[in-house]
Amino acid sequence: MPIRSEWFTHRLRVRYAETDQMGVVYHANYLNWFEQARTEWTRHHGVTYRSLEDQGLYLPVVNLTIQYRNAARYDDEIAVNVRVIELTPLRICFEYNVFGDQTAGTPSLLVTGTSEHVWVDHEWKPTRLSKVAPDIYQQFMQAVQEVE
Amino acid sequence: MPIRSEWFTHRLRVRYAETDQMGVVYHANYLNWFEQARTEWTRHHGVTYRSLEDQGLYLPVVNLTIQYRNAARYDDEIAVNVRVIELTPLRICFEYNVFGDQTAGTPSLLVTGTSEHVWVDHEWKPTRLSKVAPDIYQQFMQAVQEVE
Amino acid sequence: MPIRSEWFTHRLRVRYAETDQMGVVYHANYLNWFEQARTEWTRHHGVTYRSLEDQGLYLPVVNLTIQYRNAARYDDEIAVNVRVIELTPLRICFEYNVFGDQTAGTPSLLVTGTSEHVWVDHEWKPTRLSKVAPDIYQQFMQAVQEVE
Amino acid sequence: MPIRSEWFTHRLRVRYAETDQMGVVYHANYLNWFEQARTEWTRHHGVTYRSLEDQGLYLPVVNLTIQYRNAARYDDEIAVNVRVIELTPLRICFEYNVFGDQTAGTPSLLVTGTSEHVWVDHEWKPTRLSKVAPDIYQQFMQAVQEVE
Repeated sequence: MPIRSEWFTHRLRVRYAETDQMGVVYHANYLNWFEQARTEWTRHHGVTYRSLEDQGLYLPVVNLTIQYRNAARYDDEIAVNVRVIELTPLRICFEYNVFGDQTAGTPSLLVTGTSEHVWVDHEWKPTRLSKVAPDIYQQFMQAVQEVE
Repeated sequence: MPIRSEWFTHRLRVRYAETDQMGVVYHANYLNWFEQARTEWTRHHGVTYRSLEDQGLYLPVVNLTIQYRNAARYDDEIAVNVRVIELTPLRICFEYNVFGDQTAGTPSLLVTGTSEHVWVDHEWKPTRLSKVAPDIYQQFMQAVQEVE
Repeated sequence: MPIRSEWFTHRLRVRYAETDQMGVVYHANYLNWFEQARTEWTRHHGVTYRSLEDQGLYLPVVNLTIQYRNAARYDDEIAVNVRVIELTPLRICFEYNVFGDQTAGTPSLLVTGTSEHVWVDHEWKPTRLSKVAPDIYQQFMQAVQEVE
Repeated sequence: MPIRSEWFTHRLRVRYAETDQMGVVYHANYLNWFEQARTEWTRHHGVTYRSLEDQGLYLPVVNLTIQYRNAARYDDEIAVNVRVIELTPLRICFEYNVFGDQTAGTPSLLVTGTSEHVWVDHEWKPTRLSKVAPDIYQQFMQAVQEVE
Protein backbone atom coordinates (compact mmCIF):
# COMPACT_ATOMS: atom_id res chain seq x y z
CA MET A 1 0.00 0.00 0.00
CA PRO A 2 1.35 3.43 -0.87
CA ILE A 3 2.26 5.90 1.85
CA ARG A 4 1.81 9.65 1.94
CA SER A 5 2.57 12.53 4.26
CA GLU A 6 0.30 15.56 4.56
CA TRP A 7 1.02 18.42 2.18
CA PHE A 8 3.33 21.05 3.63
CA THR A 9 3.52 24.58 2.19
CA HIS A 10 6.73 26.57 1.84
CA ARG A 11 6.28 30.20 0.76
CA LEU A 12 8.81 32.37 -1.01
CA ARG A 13 9.02 35.48 -3.14
CA VAL A 14 10.57 35.36 -6.62
CA ARG A 15 14.01 37.00 -6.70
CA TYR A 16 15.18 39.19 -9.57
CA ALA A 17 18.20 36.92 -10.04
CA GLU A 18 15.82 34.03 -10.69
CA THR A 19 14.34 35.60 -13.82
CA ASP A 20 15.74 35.32 -17.34
CA GLN A 21 15.35 37.42 -20.47
CA MET A 22 12.06 35.66 -21.31
CA GLY A 23 10.70 37.73 -18.41
CA VAL A 24 9.90 34.69 -16.27
CA VAL A 25 11.66 32.44 -13.75
CA TYR A 26 14.47 30.45 -15.37
CA HIS A 27 13.32 26.83 -15.45
CA ALA A 28 16.21 25.35 -13.42
CA ASN A 29 15.37 27.51 -10.41
CA TYR A 30 12.27 25.48 -9.58
CA LEU A 31 14.65 22.69 -8.53
CA ASN A 32 16.09 25.02 -5.89
CA TRP A 33 12.57 25.74 -4.68
CA PHE A 34 11.80 22.02 -4.50
CA GLU A 35 14.87 21.63 -2.34
CA GLN A 36 13.93 24.44 0.02
CA ALA A 37 10.45 22.95 0.36
CA ARG A 38 11.73 19.49 1.33
CA THR A 39 14.23 21.09 3.74
CA GLU A 40 11.35 22.88 5.44
CA TRP A 41 9.19 19.73 5.39
CA THR A 42 12.04 18.02 7.24
CA ARG A 43 12.37 20.85 9.76
CA HIS A 44 8.59 20.85 10.27
CA HIS A 45 8.88 17.18 11.27
CA GLY A 46 11.56 17.81 13.86
CA VAL A 47 14.78 17.19 11.92
CA THR A 48 17.08 19.68 10.22
CA TYR A 49 18.82 18.54 7.07
CA ARG A 50 21.92 20.37 8.33
CA SER A 51 22.06 18.07 11.37
CA LEU A 52 21.86 15.03 9.07
CA GLU A 53 24.91 16.20 7.13
CA ASP A 54 26.67 16.91 10.42
CA GLN A 55 26.16 13.21 11.20
CA GLY A 56 27.61 12.21 7.83
CA LEU A 57 24.25 11.45 6.22
CA TYR A 58 23.54 12.88 2.76
CA LEU A 59 20.45 12.72 0.59
CA PRO A 60 21.40 13.26 -3.05
CA VAL A 61 18.78 13.36 -5.79
CA VAL A 62 18.80 10.32 -8.08
CA ASN A 63 15.70 11.01 -10.18
CA LEU A 64 13.73 14.11 -10.89
CA THR A 65 10.74 14.94 -13.08
CA ILE A 66 9.20 18.34 -13.61
CA GLN A 67 6.26 19.62 -15.63
CA TYR A 68 5.95 23.31 -16.50
CA ARG A 69 2.40 24.67 -16.96
CA ASN A 70 2.65 28.35 -16.24
CA ALA A 71 5.49 30.71 -15.54
CA ALA A 72 6.28 32.44 -12.26
CA ARG A 73 7.29 36.08 -12.51
CA TYR A 74 9.51 38.47 -10.59
CA ASP A 75 8.23 39.46 -7.14
CA ASP A 76 5.40 36.90 -7.22
CA GLU A 77 4.52 35.26 -3.92
CA ILE A 78 4.84 31.53 -4.50
CA ALA A 79 3.55 28.54 -2.53
CA VAL A 80 5.58 25.36 -2.96
CA ASN A 81 3.51 22.43 -1.69
CA VAL A 82 5.46 19.29 -0.87
CA ARG A 83 4.65 15.84 0.48
CA VAL A 84 6.42 12.50 0.86
CA ILE A 85 5.08 9.80 -1.47
CA GLU A 86 7.57 7.04 -0.67
CA LEU A 87 9.66 6.26 2.39
CA THR A 88 11.83 3.20 2.94
CA PRO A 89 15.00 2.67 4.99
CA LEU A 90 16.97 3.27 1.78
CA ARG A 91 15.12 6.07 0.04
CA ILE A 92 12.57 8.86 0.10
CA CYS A 93 10.47 10.38 -2.68
CA PHE A 94 8.80 13.79 -2.68
CA GLU A 95 6.03 15.28 -4.79
CA TYR A 96 5.72 19.03 -5.46
CA ASN A 97 2.99 21.43 -6.58
CA VAL A 98 4.06 25.03 -7.13
CA PHE A 99 1.26 27.60 -6.99
CA GLY A 100 1.46 31.16 -8.23
CA ASP A 101 0.56 34.57 -6.95
CA GLN A 102 -2.65 34.51 -4.97
CA THR A 103 -3.22 38.26 -4.97
CA ALA A 104 -4.81 38.07 -8.42
CA GLY A 105 -7.65 35.72 -7.42
CA THR A 106 -7.44 31.96 -7.71
CA PRO A 107 -3.90 30.68 -7.31
CA SER A 108 -2.75 28.98 -10.47
CA LEU A 109 -0.80 25.75 -10.63
CA LEU A 110 2.56 26.62 -12.19
CA VAL A 111 4.75 23.57 -11.89
CA THR A 112 4.49 19.98 -10.68
CA GLY A 113 7.28 17.52 -10.05
CA THR A 114 8.77 14.63 -8.13
CA SER A 115 12.21 13.82 -6.76
CA GLU A 116 13.70 10.55 -5.55
CA HIS A 117 16.59 10.45 -3.10
CA VAL A 118 18.78 7.78 -1.52
CA TRP A 119 20.58 7.95 1.81
CA VAL A 120 24.36 7.80 1.46
CA ASP A 121 27.25 8.14 3.91
CA HIS A 122 30.20 10.53 3.60
CA GLU A 123 31.80 8.12 1.10
CA TRP A 124 28.59 8.14 -1.00
CA LYS A 125 27.78 4.52 -0.11
CA PRO A 126 24.06 3.69 0.14
CA THR A 127 22.97 3.57 3.75
CA ARG A 128 19.92 2.26 5.63
CA LEU A 129 18.51 5.21 7.57
CA SER A 130 16.74 2.80 9.94
CA LYS A 131 20.13 1.41 11.01
CA VAL A 132 22.38 4.46 11.19
CA ALA A 133 19.79 6.88 12.57
CA PRO A 134 16.77 4.88 13.82
CA ASP A 135 15.37 7.84 15.76
CA ILE A 136 15.27 10.03 12.65
CA TYR A 137 13.78 7.19 10.61
CA GLN A 138 11.10 6.91 13.30
CA GLN A 139 10.35 10.63 13.13
CA PHE A 140 9.92 10.46 9.36
CA MET A 141 7.77 7.32 9.63
CA GLN A 142 5.43 9.16 11.96
CA ALA A 143 5.01 11.88 9.35
CA VAL A 144 3.69 9.44 6.75
CA GLN A 145 0.78 7.07 6.70
CA GLU A 146 -0.50 4.29 4.53
CA VAL A 147 -3.30 5.36 2.23
CA GLU A 148 -5.68 3.33 0.15
CA MET B 1 8.38 5.71 -36.94
CA PRO B 2 10.52 7.61 -34.48
CA ILE B 3 13.01 10.20 -35.61
CA ARG B 4 16.46 10.97 -34.29
CA SER B 5 19.27 13.39 -34.99
CA GLU B 6 22.92 12.45 -34.65
CA TRP B 7 24.48 12.97 -31.23
CA PHE B 8 26.20 16.32 -30.84
CA THR B 9 28.79 16.95 -28.12
CA HIS B 10 29.08 20.19 -26.16
CA ARG B 11 32.15 20.43 -23.89
CA LEU B 12 32.49 22.56 -20.79
CA ARG B 13 34.54 22.82 -17.62
CA VAL B 14 32.85 22.74 -14.22
CA ARG B 15 32.83 26.17 -12.56
CA TYR B 16 33.48 26.70 -8.85
CA ALA B 17 30.13 28.46 -8.53
CA GLU B 18 28.43 25.27 -9.76
CA THR B 19 29.56 23.20 -6.78
CA ASP B 20 27.79 22.93 -3.43
CA GLN B 21 28.96 21.96 0.04
CA MET B 22 28.55 18.25 -0.79
CA GLY B 23 31.71 18.85 -2.89
CA VAL B 24 29.97 18.10 -6.20
CA VAL B 25 27.96 19.98 -8.83
CA TYR B 26 24.63 21.18 -7.44
CA HIS B 27 21.95 19.09 -9.13
CA ALA B 28 20.00 21.96 -10.71
CA ASN B 29 23.03 23.08 -12.72
CA TYR B 30 22.77 20.12 -15.09
CA LEU B 31 19.64 21.78 -16.48
CA ASN B 32 21.77 24.78 -17.49
CA TRP B 33 24.20 22.41 -19.21
CA PHE B 34 21.33 20.73 -21.06
CA GLU B 35 20.29 24.14 -22.29
CA GLN B 36 23.75 25.09 -23.49
CA ALA B 37 24.01 21.76 -25.32
CA ARG B 38 20.72 22.25 -27.18
CA THR B 39 21.71 25.86 -27.99
CA GLU B 40 24.93 24.56 -29.55
CA TRP B 41 23.06 21.74 -31.34
CA THR B 42 20.89 24.45 -32.88
CA ARG B 43 23.89 26.57 -33.87
CA HIS B 44 25.59 23.49 -35.33
CA HIS B 45 22.56 23.06 -37.59
CA GLY B 46 22.68 26.62 -38.89
CA VAL B 47 20.27 28.45 -36.59
CA THR B 48 21.02 30.50 -33.49
CA TYR B 49 18.49 30.41 -30.69
CA ARG B 50 19.10 34.15 -30.25
CA SER B 51 17.88 34.81 -33.79
CA LEU B 52 14.71 32.82 -33.04
CA GLU B 53 13.92 35.03 -30.06
CA ASP B 54 14.70 38.09 -32.19
CA GLN B 55 11.89 36.88 -34.50
CA GLY B 56 9.50 36.50 -31.56
CA LEU B 57 9.83 32.70 -31.36
CA TYR B 58 10.43 31.13 -27.95
CA LEU B 59 11.00 27.54 -26.93
CA PRO B 60 10.10 27.08 -23.25
CA VAL B 61 10.54 23.73 -21.50
CA VAL B 62 7.27 21.95 -20.72
CA ASN B 63 8.60 18.61 -19.42
CA LEU B 64 11.94 17.54 -18.09
CA THR B 65 13.30 14.31 -16.63
CA ILE B 66 16.77 13.76 -15.23
CA GLN B 67 18.56 10.76 -13.73
CA TYR B 68 21.67 11.25 -11.60
CA ARG B 69 24.19 8.37 -11.59
CA ASN B 70 27.50 9.95 -10.69
CA ALA B 71 28.54 13.40 -9.59
CA ALA B 72 30.59 15.89 -11.59
CA ARG B 73 33.27 17.75 -9.63
CA TYR B 74 34.93 21.14 -9.78
CA ASP B 75 37.25 21.70 -12.76
CA ASP B 76 36.18 18.44 -14.47
CA GLU B 77 36.00 18.53 -18.24
CA ILE B 78 32.48 17.49 -19.14
CA ALA B 79 30.93 16.28 -22.38
CA VAL B 80 27.22 16.94 -22.74
CA ASN B 81 25.87 14.78 -25.56
CA VAL B 82 22.55 15.87 -27.01
CA ARG B 83 20.25 14.69 -29.81
CA VAL B 84 16.73 15.39 -30.98
CA ILE B 85 14.32 12.50 -30.38
CA GLU B 86 11.10 14.18 -31.52
CA LEU B 87 10.37 16.97 -33.96
CA THR B 88 6.95 18.20 -35.08
CA PRO B 89 5.72 21.61 -36.23
CA LEU B 90 4.56 22.21 -32.65
CA ARG B 91 7.30 20.73 -30.51
CA ILE B 92 10.80 19.36 -30.13
CA CYS B 93 12.26 16.87 -27.65
CA PHE B 94 15.91 16.44 -26.73
CA GLU B 95 17.79 13.61 -25.03
CA TYR B 96 21.00 14.19 -23.03
CA ASN B 97 23.92 12.07 -21.82
CA VAL B 98 26.46 13.84 -19.63
CA PHE B 99 29.89 12.20 -19.46
CA GLY B 100 32.57 12.95 -16.90
CA ASP B 101 36.25 13.68 -16.91
CA GLN B 102 38.07 11.68 -19.53
CA THR B 103 41.55 12.28 -18.19
CA ALA B 104 41.15 9.47 -15.68
CA GLY B 105 40.56 6.71 -18.25
CA THR B 106 37.12 5.66 -19.41
CA PRO B 107 34.65 8.53 -19.32
CA SER B 108 31.83 7.76 -16.93
CA LEU B 109 28.17 8.44 -17.57
CA LEU B 110 27.11 10.99 -14.96
CA VAL B 111 23.63 12.11 -15.84
CA THR B 112 20.94 11.32 -18.41
CA GLY B 113 17.81 13.27 -19.20
CA THR B 114 15.19 14.48 -21.61
CA SER B 115 13.43 17.76 -22.23
CA GLU B 116 10.29 18.59 -24.19
CA HIS B 117 9.66 22.05 -25.61
CA VAL B 118 6.86 23.80 -27.46
CA TRP B 119 7.14 26.75 -29.84
CA VAL B 120 5.35 29.85 -28.59
CA ASP B 121 5.09 33.43 -29.83
CA HIS B 122 5.83 36.57 -27.83
CA GLU B 123 2.41 36.24 -26.16
CA TRP B 124 3.20 32.64 -25.16
CA LYS B 125 0.64 31.25 -27.60
CA PRO B 126 1.53 27.85 -29.16
CA THR B 127 2.84 28.30 -32.66
CA ARG B 128 3.50 26.02 -35.65
CA LEU B 129 7.16 26.45 -36.56
CA SER B 130 6.46 25.14 -40.07
CA LYS B 131 4.10 28.11 -40.64
CA VAL B 132 5.88 31.02 -38.97
CA ALA B 133 9.42 30.03 -39.94
CA PRO B 134 9.28 27.33 -42.63
CA ASP B 135 12.96 27.74 -43.52
CA ILE B 136 14.06 27.05 -39.94
CA TYR B 137 11.67 24.13 -39.69
CA GLN B 138 13.26 22.78 -42.88
CA GLN B 139 16.77 23.14 -41.46
CA PHE B 140 15.79 21.23 -38.33
CA MET B 141 14.02 18.53 -40.40
CA GLN B 142 17.22 17.97 -42.33
CA ALA B 143 19.07 17.34 -39.07
CA VAL B 144 16.80 14.47 -38.12
CA GLN B 145 15.95 11.22 -39.81
CA GLU B 146 13.52 8.41 -39.36
CA VAL B 147 15.04 5.40 -37.66
CA GLU B 148 13.74 1.86 -37.30
CA MET C 1 25.48 67.56 3.89
CA PRO C 2 25.18 63.81 3.49
CA ILE C 3 21.83 62.10 3.66
CA ARG C 4 20.88 58.79 5.20
CA SER C 5 17.81 56.63 5.57
CA GLU C 6 17.19 54.50 8.65
CA TRP C 7 18.60 50.97 8.54
CA PHE C 8 16.11 48.38 7.28
CA THR C 9 16.55 44.66 7.98
CA HIS C 10 15.77 41.92 5.46
CA ARG C 11 15.96 38.37 6.86
CA LEU C 12 16.62 35.21 4.89
CA ARG C 13 17.82 31.66 5.35
CA VAL C 14 20.85 30.36 3.44
CA ARG C 15 19.87 27.96 0.65
CA TYR C 16 21.81 24.80 -0.15
CA ALA C 17 22.25 26.01 -3.73
CA GLU C 18 24.04 29.08 -2.39
CA THR C 19 26.92 27.09 -0.88
CA ASP C 20 30.05 25.96 -2.70
CA GLN C 21 32.57 23.21 -2.06
CA MET C 22 34.45 25.40 0.44
CA GLY C 23 31.42 24.68 2.66
CA VAL C 24 30.32 28.31 2.78
CA VAL C 25 28.14 30.68 0.74
CA TYR C 26 29.64 31.34 -2.70
CA HIS C 27 30.84 34.95 -2.69
CA ALA C 28 28.73 36.18 -5.62
CA ASN C 29 25.50 35.28 -3.84
CA TYR C 30 25.82 38.17 -1.40
CA LEU C 31 25.06 40.46 -4.37
CA ASN C 32 21.69 38.73 -4.75
CA TRP C 33 21.04 39.30 -1.04
CA PHE C 34 21.96 42.98 -1.40
CA GLU C 35 19.42 43.21 -4.19
CA GLN C 36 16.66 41.55 -2.21
CA ALA C 37 17.37 43.89 0.71
CA ARG C 38 17.08 47.03 -1.42
CA THR C 39 13.91 45.65 -3.05
CA GLU C 40 12.40 45.22 0.41
CA TRP C 41 13.65 48.65 1.53
CA THR C 42 11.78 50.06 -1.47
CA ARG C 43 8.61 48.12 -0.66
CA HIS C 44 8.87 49.22 2.99
CA HIS C 45 8.78 52.82 1.75
CA GLY C 46 5.64 52.33 -0.32
CA VAL C 47 7.01 51.55 -3.78
CA THR C 48 7.57 48.16 -5.43
CA TYR C 49 10.51 47.84 -7.76
CA ARG C 50 8.25 45.76 -10.02
CA SER C 51 5.92 48.72 -10.48
CA LEU C 52 8.89 50.90 -11.44
CA GLU C 53 9.86 48.49 -14.22
CA ASP C 54 6.22 48.36 -15.30
CA GLN C 55 6.50 52.16 -15.82
CA GLY C 56 9.66 51.71 -17.88
CA LEU C 57 12.03 52.78 -15.10
CA TYR C 58 15.09 50.63 -14.41
CA LEU C 59 17.78 50.92 -11.77
CA PRO C 60 20.92 49.10 -12.93
CA VAL C 61 24.02 48.86 -10.73
CA VAL C 62 26.93 51.00 -11.90
CA ASN C 63 29.35 50.51 -9.00
CA LEU C 64 29.62 47.92 -6.28
CA THR C 65 32.08 47.27 -3.47
CA ILE C 66 32.01 44.36 -1.06
CA GLN C 67 34.18 43.33 1.87
CA TYR C 68 34.12 39.74 3.15
CA ARG C 69 34.92 39.24 6.86
CA ASN C 70 33.27 35.98 7.82
CA ALA C 71 31.46 33.30 5.88
CA ALA C 72 27.77 32.48 6.02
CA ARG C 73 26.90 28.79 6.09
CA TYR C 74 24.04 26.60 4.92
CA ASP C 75 20.76 27.02 6.81
CA ASP C 76 22.04 30.07 8.75
CA GLU C 77 19.48 32.77 9.46
CA ILE C 78 20.90 35.95 7.99
CA ALA C 79 20.04 39.61 8.56
CA VAL C 80 20.84 41.91 5.65
CA ASN C 81 20.78 45.51 6.90
CA VAL C 82 20.41 48.15 4.22
CA ARG C 83 20.15 51.94 4.13
CA VAL C 84 20.29 54.69 1.53
CA ILE C 85 23.45 56.83 1.73
CA GLU C 86 22.90 58.99 -1.35
CA LEU C 87 19.79 60.09 -3.22
CA THR C 88 19.62 62.54 -6.12
CA PRO C 89 17.19 62.83 -9.04
CA LEU C 90 19.71 60.84 -11.11
CA ARG C 91 21.00 58.21 -8.74
CA ILE C 92 20.74 56.29 -5.48
CA CYS C 93 23.40 54.59 -3.34
CA PHE C 94 22.86 51.86 -0.77
CA GLU C 95 25.04 50.56 2.05
CA TYR C 96 24.78 46.98 3.37
CA ASN C 97 25.78 45.12 6.54
CA VAL C 98 25.18 41.37 6.53
CA PHE C 99 24.95 39.75 9.96
CA GLY C 100 25.18 36.04 10.66
CA ASP C 101 23.30 33.49 12.67
CA GLN C 102 22.06 34.96 15.93
CA THR C 103 21.24 31.63 17.59
CA ALA C 104 24.89 31.21 18.64
CA GLY C 105 25.06 34.36 20.78
CA THR C 106 26.22 37.70 19.42
CA PRO C 107 25.48 38.10 15.72
CA SER C 108 28.69 38.43 13.77
CA LEU C 109 29.25 40.89 10.95
CA LEU C 110 29.87 38.79 7.83
CA VAL C 111 29.93 41.15 4.90
CA THR C 112 29.73 44.88 4.23
CA GLY C 113 29.22 46.64 0.93
CA THR C 114 27.84 49.50 -1.12
CA SER C 115 26.08 49.79 -4.46
CA GLU C 116 25.47 52.78 -6.70
CA HIS C 117 22.60 52.88 -9.19
CA VAL C 118 21.35 55.25 -11.87
CA TRP C 119 17.81 55.64 -13.15
CA VAL C 120 17.43 54.71 -16.83
CA ASP C 121 14.49 54.40 -19.17
CA HIS C 122 13.61 51.38 -21.32
CA GLU C 123 16.27 52.44 -23.81
CA TRP C 124 18.88 52.63 -21.02
CA LYS C 125 19.08 56.42 -21.24
CA PRO C 126 19.78 58.20 -17.91
CA THR C 127 16.60 59.65 -16.49
CA ARG C 128 15.72 62.15 -13.77
CA LEU C 129 13.41 60.37 -11.34
CA SER C 130 12.12 63.73 -10.09
CA LYS C 131 10.81 64.48 -13.61
CA VAL C 132 9.44 61.15 -14.82
CA ALA C 133 8.01 59.99 -11.48
CA PRO C 134 7.92 62.95 -9.07
CA ASP C 135 5.60 61.14 -6.64
CA ILE C 136 8.03 58.24 -6.25
CA TYR C 137 10.96 60.61 -5.91
CA GLN C 138 9.01 62.34 -3.15
CA GLN C 139 8.38 59.05 -1.35
CA PHE C 140 12.06 58.20 -1.43
CA MET C 141 13.03 61.72 -0.29
CA GLN C 142 10.79 61.30 2.75
CA ALA C 143 12.67 58.12 3.65
CA VAL C 144 15.99 59.92 3.89
CA GLN C 145 17.20 62.84 5.95
CA GLU C 146 20.21 65.06 6.13
CA VAL C 147 22.65 64.09 8.86
CA GLU C 148 25.61 65.96 10.32
CA MET D 1 57.46 49.33 -6.64
CA PRO D 2 54.23 47.81 -7.87
CA ILE D 3 54.18 44.44 -9.59
CA ARG D 4 52.08 43.26 -12.50
CA SER D 5 51.60 40.12 -14.53
CA GLU D 6 50.81 40.18 -18.23
CA TRP D 7 47.14 40.33 -19.17
CA PHE D 8 45.59 36.91 -19.77
CA THR D 9 42.35 36.48 -21.73
CA HIS D 10 39.62 34.00 -20.83
CA ARG D 11 36.83 33.67 -23.40
CA LEU D 12 33.29 32.53 -22.75
CA ARG D 13 29.82 32.72 -24.25
CA VAL D 14 26.92 34.21 -22.29
CA ARG D 15 24.51 31.54 -21.06
CA TYR D 16 20.74 31.98 -21.09
CA ALA D 17 20.65 31.28 -17.36
CA GLU D 18 22.93 34.27 -16.81
CA THR D 19 20.40 36.78 -18.17
CA ASP D 20 17.64 38.45 -16.18
CA GLN D 21 14.37 40.08 -17.16
CA MET D 22 16.15 43.36 -17.98
CA GLY D 23 17.37 41.41 -21.03
CA VAL D 24 21.04 41.56 -19.99
CA VAL D 25 23.45 39.55 -17.84
CA TYR D 26 22.48 39.68 -14.15
CA HIS D 27 25.13 41.78 -12.42
CA ALA D 28 26.28 39.15 -9.90
CA ASN D 29 27.32 36.78 -12.69
CA TYR D 30 30.35 38.87 -13.60
CA LEU D 31 31.86 37.72 -10.29
CA ASN D 32 31.68 34.12 -11.55
CA TRP D 33 33.42 35.21 -14.74
CA PHE D 34 36.15 36.94 -12.72
CA GLU D 35 36.66 33.69 -10.88
CA GLN D 36 36.89 31.59 -14.02
CA ALA D 37 39.40 34.06 -15.45
CA ARG D 38 41.70 33.88 -12.40
CA THR D 39 41.38 30.07 -12.38
CA GLU D 40 42.55 30.01 -15.99
CA TRP D 41 45.31 32.56 -15.26
CA THR D 42 46.52 30.14 -12.57
CA ARG D 43 46.35 27.15 -14.92
CA HIS D 44 48.19 29.14 -17.60
CA HIS D 45 51.03 29.62 -15.12
CA GLY D 46 51.34 25.94 -14.33
CA VAL D 47 49.15 25.52 -11.24
CA THR D 48 45.55 24.35 -10.99
CA TYR D 49 43.43 25.88 -8.28
CA ARG D 50 41.94 22.41 -7.73
CA SER D 51 45.37 21.06 -6.77
CA LEU D 52 45.77 23.90 -4.27
CA GLU D 53 42.54 22.94 -2.52
CA ASP D 54 43.64 19.29 -2.61
CA GLN D 55 46.68 20.45 -0.56
CA GLY D 56 44.43 22.25 1.91
CA LEU D 57 45.12 25.73 0.52
CA TYR D 58 42.17 28.04 -0.12
CA LEU D 59 41.99 31.51 -1.60
CA PRO D 60 38.79 33.23 -0.46
CA VAL D 61 37.89 36.73 -1.66
CA VAL D 62 38.22 39.42 1.01
CA ASN D 63 37.57 42.54 -1.09
CA LEU D 64 35.93 43.10 -4.41
CA THR D 65 35.10 46.16 -6.49
CA ILE D 66 33.24 46.21 -9.78
CA GLN D 67 32.22 48.96 -12.20
CA TYR D 68 29.47 48.38 -14.75
CA ARG D 69 29.71 50.40 -17.98
CA ASN D 70 27.82 48.37 -20.56
CA ALA D 71 25.71 45.25 -20.40
CA ALA D 72 26.58 41.85 -21.85
CA ARG D 73 23.76 40.05 -23.62
CA TYR D 74 22.72 36.45 -24.22
CA ASP D 75 24.95 34.49 -26.59
CA ASP D 76 27.60 37.26 -26.75
CA GLU D 77 31.19 36.12 -26.98
CA ILE D 78 32.98 37.71 -24.05
CA ALA D 79 36.67 38.26 -23.32
CA VAL D 80 37.55 38.47 -19.63
CA ASN D 81 41.04 39.97 -19.31
CA VAL D 82 42.77 39.36 -16.01
CA ARG D 83 46.15 40.20 -14.49
CA VAL D 84 47.78 40.10 -11.07
CA ILE D 85 48.38 43.54 -9.57
CA GLU D 86 49.67 42.47 -6.15
CA LEU D 87 51.42 39.34 -4.90
CA THR D 88 52.85 38.77 -1.43
CA PRO D 89 53.31 35.57 0.60
CA LEU D 90 49.98 36.34 2.30
CA ARG D 91 47.80 37.66 -0.49
CA ILE D 92 47.12 38.16 -4.17
CA CYS D 93 45.10 40.83 -6.01
CA PHE D 94 43.65 40.58 -9.50
CA GLU D 95 42.37 43.22 -11.91
CA TYR D 96 39.72 42.47 -14.56
CA ASN D 97 38.53 44.04 -17.81
CA VAL D 98 35.51 42.43 -19.45
CA PHE D 99 35.12 43.12 -23.17
CA GLY D 100 31.99 42.51 -25.21
CA ASP D 101 31.11 40.91 -28.47
CA GLN D 102 33.75 41.56 -31.11
CA THR D 103 31.64 40.51 -34.06
CA ALA D 104 30.05 43.96 -34.22
CA GLY D 105 33.29 45.87 -34.77
CA THR D 106 35.34 47.36 -31.94
CA PRO D 107 35.01 45.36 -28.75
CA SER D 108 33.45 47.47 -26.04
CA LEU D 109 34.59 47.57 -22.42
CA LEU D 110 31.68 46.26 -20.36
CA VAL D 111 32.91 45.84 -16.84
CA THR D 112 36.07 46.49 -14.82
CA GLY D 113 36.93 45.24 -11.37
CA THR D 114 39.43 44.08 -8.80
CA SER D 115 39.52 41.30 -6.23
CA GLU D 116 41.78 40.75 -3.24
CA HIS D 117 42.39 37.30 -1.78
CA VAL D 118 44.24 35.84 1.19
CA TRP D 119 45.71 32.35 1.51
CA VAL D 120 44.08 30.30 4.27
CA ASP D 121 44.42 26.70 5.42
CA HIS D 122 41.57 24.21 5.85
CA GLU D 123 40.72 25.86 9.20
CA TRP D 124 40.55 29.27 7.49
CA LYS D 125 43.71 30.49 9.25
CA PRO D 126 45.85 32.94 7.23
CA THR D 127 48.82 31.16 5.70
CA ARG D 128 52.09 32.23 4.08
CA LEU D 129 52.15 30.66 0.63
CA SER D 130 55.94 31.02 0.53
CA LYS D 131 56.19 28.69 3.55
CA VAL D 132 53.55 26.04 2.91
CA ALA D 133 54.02 25.79 -0.86
CA PRO D 134 57.28 27.54 -1.83
CA ASP D 135 57.33 25.96 -5.30
CA ILE D 136 53.89 27.38 -6.14
CA TYR D 137 54.83 30.74 -4.69
CA GLN D 138 57.88 30.66 -6.95
CA GLN D 139 55.77 29.85 -10.01
CA PHE D 140 53.49 32.79 -9.29
CA MET D 141 56.44 35.12 -8.65
CA GLN D 142 57.80 34.27 -12.07
CA ALA D 143 54.52 35.33 -13.62
CA VAL D 144 54.77 38.83 -12.22
CA GLN D 145 57.34 41.55 -12.56
CA GLU D 146 58.09 44.89 -11.03
CA VAL D 147 56.95 47.79 -13.15
CA GLU D 148 57.71 51.47 -12.90
